[in-house]
Amino acid sequence: MESITLEKAASLLSEKDNILILMHRSPDGDTIGCGYALCLALRSMGKKAQAVCSDPIPAKYSYITDHVDEQSFDPEYIVSVDIAAPQLFGEGLSGYVDRVDLCIDHHGSNSGFAKYGFVDPSAAACAQIIARLIDLMGVETSSVIADAIFTGVSTDTGCFKFSNTTAETYRIAADMIDRGAQGFMISRLMFDTKSRSQLELEKLALDTLEYRCDGKIAIITLTTEMMTATGADDSETEYITSLPRQIEGVLVGITIKQKSPELCRISVRAAVGTDASAICSVFGGGGHKGAAGCSIEASPDEAKERIAAAAAEVIGK
Amino acid sequence: MESITLEKAASLLSEKDNILILMHRSPDGDTIGCGYALCLALRSMGKKAQAVCSDPIPAKYSYITDHVDEQSFDPEYIVSVDIAAPQLFGEGLSGYVDRVDLCIDHHGSNSGFAKYGFVDPSAAACAQIIARLIDLMGVETSSVIADAIFTGVSTDTGCFKFSNTTAETYRIAADMIDRGAQGFMISRLMFDTKSRSQLELEKLALDTLEYRCDGKIAIITLTTEMMTATGADDSETEYITSLPRQIEGVLVGITIKQKSPELCRISVRAAVGTDASAICSVFGGGGHKGAAGCSIEASPDEAKERIAAAAAEVIGK
Repeated sequence: MESITLEKAASLLSEKDNILILMHRSPDGDTIGCGYALCLALRSMGKKAQAVCSDPIPAKYSYITDHVDEQSFDPEYIVSVDIAAPQLFGEGLSGYVDRVDLCIDHHGSNSGFAKYGFVDPSAAACAQIIARLIDLMGVETSSVIADAIFTGVSTDTGCFKFSNTTAETYRIAADMIDRGAQGFMISRLMFDTKSRSQLELEKLALDTLEYRCDGKIAIITLTTEMMTATGADDSETEYITSLPRQIEGVLVGITIKQKSPELCRISVRAAVGTDASAICSVFGGGGHKGAAGCSIEASPDEAKERIAAAAAEVIGK
Repeated sequence: MESITLEKAASLLSEKDNILILMHRSPDGDTIGCGYALCLALRSMGKKAQAVCSDPIPAKYSYITDHVDEQSFDPEYIVSVDIAAPQLFGEGLSGYVDRVDLCIDHHGSNSGFAKYGFVDPSAAACAQIIARLIDLMGVETSSVIADAIFTGVSTDTGCFKFSNTTAETYRIAADMIDRGAQGFMISRLMFDTKSRSQLELEKLALDTLEYRCDGKIAIITLTTEMMTATGADDSETEYITSLPRQIEGVLVGITIKQKSPELCRISVRAAVGTDASAICSVFGGGGHKGAAGCSIEASPDEAKERIAAAAAEVIGK
């Protein structure tokens, strides 16, 4: 992949037409915000453009997707947004893996699958890059584009709360509000709304909370039985995953999600100064210092003992 | 109270010395951020200044307070920050109620107790006004001042999530980050940390969750027994108060806090389009459309029936 400047990316896009924009599988607010914002910007330049994903876009993003109709055309130029590696295309889009002309991303780990790429790991959200790109293309940001960019920026920073949040993140949010983004509606929808099943699961999860190492480790267990009983789906466990680390004095927060009788997926969240990925690497997993994951082939009880032992080792207890 | 411009407020402060800054009782991040930021700004102009509060400043704000030593002097000029009315001075500062020279505030309901006042209800946080004031005084914002302003802005907007958040809120946050504010540390401390007792209380609270009117009303009850059993204090119930309204489909979220066997304090949170203050006014309470409160002299069970009936009436069920 040849690294190019964002100016070059803007001029490449300005020259092309019939542009297909690929979003990653299991789409989140950032890839959706990027895909739709770029699509609308290109269309406002008189081009044909379409943003596509191998998975359905969740209904809660309808305030964006309702404003973008389907266009059919033979793709002549293919752009990926917020996609770090080929396995994130998903089955429906796997045919495009070797055909990507331009990759716009903010993952430092980007595998370089495209012809040209602009990757800026300092951007908290890929939507920050798309906001700059749209400005460079000379397109006026409509209120729907502003909603899309705001969504990407706010969701990828956990509502401006994660360590990736920079001054530019806040400035882009401000600019999008000025251009009509519905900041309050989006924040309430993304960060201040829970389903009944999610709340039921949270209640059951809190009942399993255990402390180890004088409260430096906190562990929550979600069994398949609990998922079935509450009807919660996997996306609804995200919030719970962050719970044990939030507890005062906890250095390592662990969530054990049982996938089958003898298989557990483990999420580890660590306080500043503690390395979650070091704990997960013991079991062949990985991630970042603050957040990492791994799988353990064992029952929840046994998986708990193994991951707790690894965590205790890493924090030196 | 004579309304003055912020430029006039800046020039008044520039002329004075030995300035006492009053913060409101039960201090929150905004009044603390304002008090300490203004104090440090005035000191950097070579003046004597001190920020005072009738209640102790909670330890979690030590990243600000540790950088501000005590100065003793006879107050010659008295300024209040983020104080809407005399009853918010608290006992320790009640002697100053009639002696305030300058009131800086963002509450539209400000009672006008001071000689001069600058009140801007469009500011999400009073700290937004203090940030502009410090600029007008020509003071360079130090990293501690930046931390203090950021704290005020982020806490009074619920981490940039409430409806009061504006483009200026985000821009001031960006400016403070540029000037050294520890945005991530502050956000994690304020919005991503729970005590064990808080979590215990949350678990018990979720067990009391009830729905009324086809799920349009959700009610949580906190008894004195639950408070005693968990050791949680009143400030730790704030988060729980927002829980019932967060549930999908809920228009009115009610939290009943038992204060004594036959007295309950009721917190009502409403979705956009529903008026919480109309519900509370039935019992002589009040507040805003989104958040209001009242007291009912009854047991939790009876208070629940009364407030639920009032809520059902207001939502037209």
